[in-house]
Amino acid sequence: MKVLVTGFEPFGPDSINASWEAVRRLPKRTAGIDIVAKCVPVVFGDAARIVEELIEREQPDAVLCTGVAAGRAQVTPEYVAINHRHARIADNEGFQPCDEPVVAGAPDAYFASAPVYAMAKACCEQGIPAAVSYSAGTYCCNDLFYSVRHFVQQRYPGMLVDFIHVPQCPEQVAIAGEVKPSMEPATAVRALEIMIEILFK
Amino acid sequence: MKVLVTGFEPFGPDSINASWEAVRRLPKRTAGIDIVAKCVPVVFGDAARIVEELIEREQPDAVLCTGVAAGRAQVTPEYVAINHRHARIADNEGFQPCDEPVVAGAPDAYFASAPVYAMAKACCEQGIPAAVSYSAGTYCCNDLFYSVRHFVQQRYPGMLVDFIHVPQCPEQVAIAGEVKPSMEPATAVRALEIMIEILFK
Amino acid sequence: MKVLVTGFEPFGPDSINASWEAVRRLPKRTAGIDIVAKCVPVVFGDAARIVEELIEREQPDAVLCTGVAAGRAQVTPEYVAINHRHARIADNEGFQPCDEPVVAGAPDAYFASAPVYAMAKACCEQGIPAAVSYSAGTYCCNDLFYSVRHFVQQRYPGMLVDFIHVPQCPEQVAIAGEVKPSMEPATAVRALEIMIEILFK
Amino acid sequence: MKVLVTGFEPFGPDSINASWEAVRRLPKRTAGIDIVAKCVPVVFGDAARIVEELIEREQPDAVLCTGVAAGRAQVTPEYVAINHRHARIADNEGFQPCDEPVVAGAPDAYFASAPVYAMAKACCEQGIPAAVSYSAGTYCCNDLFYSVRHFVQQRYPGMLVDFIHVPQCPEQVAIAGEVKPSMEPATAVRALEIMIEILFK
Repeated sequence: MKVLVTGFEPFGPDSINASWEAVRRLPKRTAGIDIVAKCVPVVFGDAARIVEELIEREQPDAVLCTGVAAGRAQVTPEYVAINHRHARIADNEGFQPCDEPVVAGAPDAYFASAPVYAMAKACCEQGIPAAVSYSAGTYCCNDLFYSVRHFVQQRYPGMLVDFIHVPQCPEQVAIAGEVKPSMEPATAVRALEIMIEILFK
Repeated sequence: MKVLVTGFEPFGPDSINASWEAVRRLPKRTAGIDIVAKCVPVVFGDAARIVEELIEREQPDAVLCTGVAAGRAQVTPEYVAINHRHARIADNEGFQPCDEPVVAGAPDAYFASAPVYAMAKACCEQGIPAAVSYSAGTYCCNDLFYSVRHFVQQRYPGMLVDFIHVPQCPEQVAIAGEVKPSMEPATAVRALEIMIEILFK
Repeated sequence: MKVLVTGFEPFGPDSINASWEAVRRLPKRTAGIDIVAKCVPVVFGDAARIVEELIEREQPDAVLCTGVAAGRAQVTPEYVAINHRHARIADNEGFQPCDEPVVAGAPDAYFASAPVYAMAKACCEQGIPAAVSYSAGTYCCNDLFYSVRHFVQQRYPGMLVDFIHVPQCPEQVAIAGEVKPSMEPATAVRALEIMIEILFK
Repeated sequence: MKVLVTGFEPFGPDSINASWEAVRRLPKRTAGIDIVAKCVPVVFGDAARIVEELIEREQPDAVLCTGVAAGRAQVTPEYVAINHRHARIADNEGFQPCDEPVVAGAPDAYFASAPVYAMAKACCEQGIPAAVSYSAGTYCCNDLFYSVRHFVQQRYPGMLVDFIHVPQCPEQVAIAGEVKPSMEPATAVRALEIMIEILFK
């Protein structure tokens, strides 16, 4: 089995992105499953194009895209991707879409095809705070999730796809006046491994 | 230099206490400072008596008591200990004081004698979320803080004293339906070491 | 123009439901728009059947269903209804669905057909905290929203449909040990009137 | 009986202050108790001087100072005033004290002399969210509280003194991107009346 796992590059004022900090620490292989890790840009559309090319080339059995969710205290596999872009800040190419679809004419939403409840439960059982989330937002995370899920629906209907949000890294919130939850990258890595292993059970 | 550091035993429904999980992982010595670690009971009055005896025996230069603060995302050195007990749940001996003083006739409050702003700042600079807190609550944490601070004021006026709250451990909040921030014990240990090292600078 | 507005009856430990507390205070008519108010049960499926019968009978131009969202500080028009039921507590008939669809074989989700961004913006401009929400949850609120939205899609494609969550009433959170945001019913009523008036602009 | 009640003028980016919005709506008399209302500046030291002059002139039986606490969802009578100034932003005269005492040489803290637990309980019983708070912060609110409490301790030892924080007004948080709890001024007024009436029972 092979899983493609992506993390995002930094954006906004940050010099690191907790999702890539976790993904880049993943082993090449866990429990007999090959892991292909990739860092993608925080750019509407571009991230999805890169992931879709990788899917074509790598032919993975599952795709787990990850991103950071400031303010969240848990690892949160996402239940639903929506066909909607609405950005509060510009992406890394300066693009700031407002109330527009990801793919014109496509369905309003897709549910994750990966077993999100089992994924969250397995993390909790291993002592890592996790919960299913019902909103991946309206920024580049949801954009990537929707695009890839739509692509896979058309081309690889049996492929497991999910998007997983991770909390910020401690160093990102170690700022006077900020009070935000965080999670060590090593803990997020364990969460990703646990969820990868549960994918095919 | 010698520092006495205490953590609390578990209480309520928990089988671990994040404060002792951190304190018991401290080295015996850091940056030339000896560390004496002690686990104390979650019992009004008793915890303080144990710490006061240890102070007499060990004659430390500083005393850092620690406890867990559910819901907090940061390591929080406390600014002030108040002469007040008001418990929402019973302590581990079944005692649940309501609106009464820690020490009858003693001052309403004492400020920490340790450099709390420098302690929080040093943690943040090392990438660990920390902030000065202005309330240690009204349960056994504040009780221990007030008692020890009062004792030291009378007997060892130059001794540095503070109480430090740490977030819960990830495994404590890895529960369906719970959404609380947490911190790895290893991260809390680093925070304590950083704060111990700053004490005498 | 005519708008059908629903609120929910109480459920769980509560003796009132903030949504019906607001809806029952609505005038019969605002800005030339007739308002038909209805209280519906917190029962999967039943609430939707009642609303669908009312739609057939009343032939409204818009349907705004409302519910209470404990923990929210704002009035939140919902962006998306999902084809998913997942209840943490049983409904008022004792039914507690787990990970199942609202309507088997129907689309994963529908977006609101009412202008949710304009609705939230109009409230804020009038001084009432409001924001678009991207998750109506997985309980009876989302169930009603999805069912009605799906029904209208099939039968009355031009009809405006949304679900609006309101905060709890102050008296619901005036409980020792609870810390939850709340909103006066009178304020929620104003929010609903503002949103009803914006529907046809 | 006579009660002096103060609220603060606006500060920072705000054009209103929820505390004065409540206090200025108080009646001149409630339950046979005369109410003297006063708006004070958000200036370290100055607010206290004005209140102390008013105490000398009016000779009230109780003094309730109020201020706004952004982020709080409840009316919170404060338990303790601390002898400490530490401002994150400058006051309305541009003064930004950092880690200094309110009154050099004075006690570290004073407890409120008003019955704060009874005050919070009475509000909750009337359906208004309230709770005792153990930190009035380190800005002008605590500064006024400590100064007045210290003054009264020296000059009018039997006088009841407290500081009460109220949530922001809805219109202050009706801003895109902001998610903060709020309370209608009319509700805060009722809370103040309830607490004034309980003072002498």
